[in-house]
Amino acid sequence: MDHSPIEFYFDFSSPYGYFASTQIEALAAEFGRQVSWRPILLGPIFRRVGAPPLVEVPLKGPYALRDFARTARLFDIPYIHPARFPIATVGAARAMLWIAAHHGQDKAAEFAHKVFHAFFAGQQDISNTDVVAALGEGVGLPPGELLQGMNEPAIKEALKKQVEDAITRGVFGSPYLIIDDEPFWGFDRFDHIRRWMRLRGR
Amino acid sequence: MDHSPIEFYFDFSSPYGYFASTQIEALAAEFGRQVSWRPILLGPIFRRVGAPPLVEVPLKGPYALRDFARTARLFDIPYIHPARFPIATVGAARAMLWIAAHHGQDKAAEFAHKVFHAFFAGQQDISNTDVVAALGEGVGLPPGELLQGMNEPAIKEALKKQVEDAITRGVFGSPYLIIDDEPFWGFDRFDHIRRWMRLRGR
Repeated sequence: MDHSPIEFYFDFSSPYGYFASTQIEALAAEFGRQVSWRPILLGPIFRRVGAPPLVEVPLKGPYALRDFARTARLFDIPYIHPARFPIATVGAARAMLWIAAHHGQDKAAEFAHKVFHAFFAGQQDISNTDVVAALGEGVGLPPGELLQGMNEPAIKEALKKQVEDAITRGVFGSPYLIIDDEPFWGFDRFDHIRRWMRLRGR
Repeated sequence: MDHSPIEFYFDFSSPYGYFASTQIEALAAEFGRQVSWRPILLGPIFRRVGAPPLVEVPLKGPYALRDFARTARLFDIPYIHPARFPIATVGAARAMLWIAAHHGQDKAAEFAHKVFHAFFAGQQDISNTDVVAALGEGVGLPPGELLQGMNEPAIKEALKKQVEDAITRGVFGSPYLIIDDEPFWGFDRFDHIRRWMRLRGR
């Protein structure tokens, strides 16, 4: 039986990515899996596939705003729709990759939770690198180091590669989960994942 | 307590609309509701909002095809992806409206189940009006009458109006359900509907 980690692609500016982040570890644990956190940037992906940002689509946009708030309520997830939305998350994504490279995946996941919560429940502007550094400090990382790490060419390159790889693998939204090569798009696929895992005998 | 029917907007060419059709009556019954079946046409709606058909979107299209088949399997719904897809459903939608007007909602719902099943499990071309008439015959309607009814100017006008009204109400996809003015888009919102109904004490 394969027990490779659940690959969890997300953009820090994605409400459904945030909702998924609050439950992904519990979901993985149900099936004895780890989570591989993979921050990506929806901007370049949407431009590549010719899709406008969700909230700009006629009819669908207003519905989405309503669905964000309602989904949070139905699943008991703290949520205050950000005043500026969507925003650039390249700094936060680079920070996460640097933390993973230098302090391990667990620390990076701890940081990711802080970032998501700050943006979607704390009304903080995570497109601001000083805010990102302060969130890193909250998980024990010296802000100077993190700010420097975010700007390393190797980290910038790693994020670019992660976005490219994601597109190659078919990732077009957030959250996008891959379990043993099986793709699932959306927080609303958590139930499908459970059914799928049961059907194949985990 | 309000007990107005669940308004169920769908296109006969929509796989997720089909999946919803197999469970909508059970869902409504859980909450002591009826279902108001409202066939619409996604073509004019997509053109209005500037959205391409789902399966034509890069990355998302191939994923959707996979998700149709998987969702059917996970929810134990018979499904054979139609050889021609999507197709024009204006005839089937008009036929349903005519049946509702002349033989009542229950007969129309019975017909709708036949149409969906013929297209998504029976490899029948429901864009063909003779196929539509034969399906009507299967629920006891003389095919000549139905073919004539589908062509009545009042029925054509009624469908046009239903599509216009749907857009006015914010409908942009299929299935799209409205319960006491609260909109839910997608088969994957059935679970959200249950949570929402419970949260408000039905």
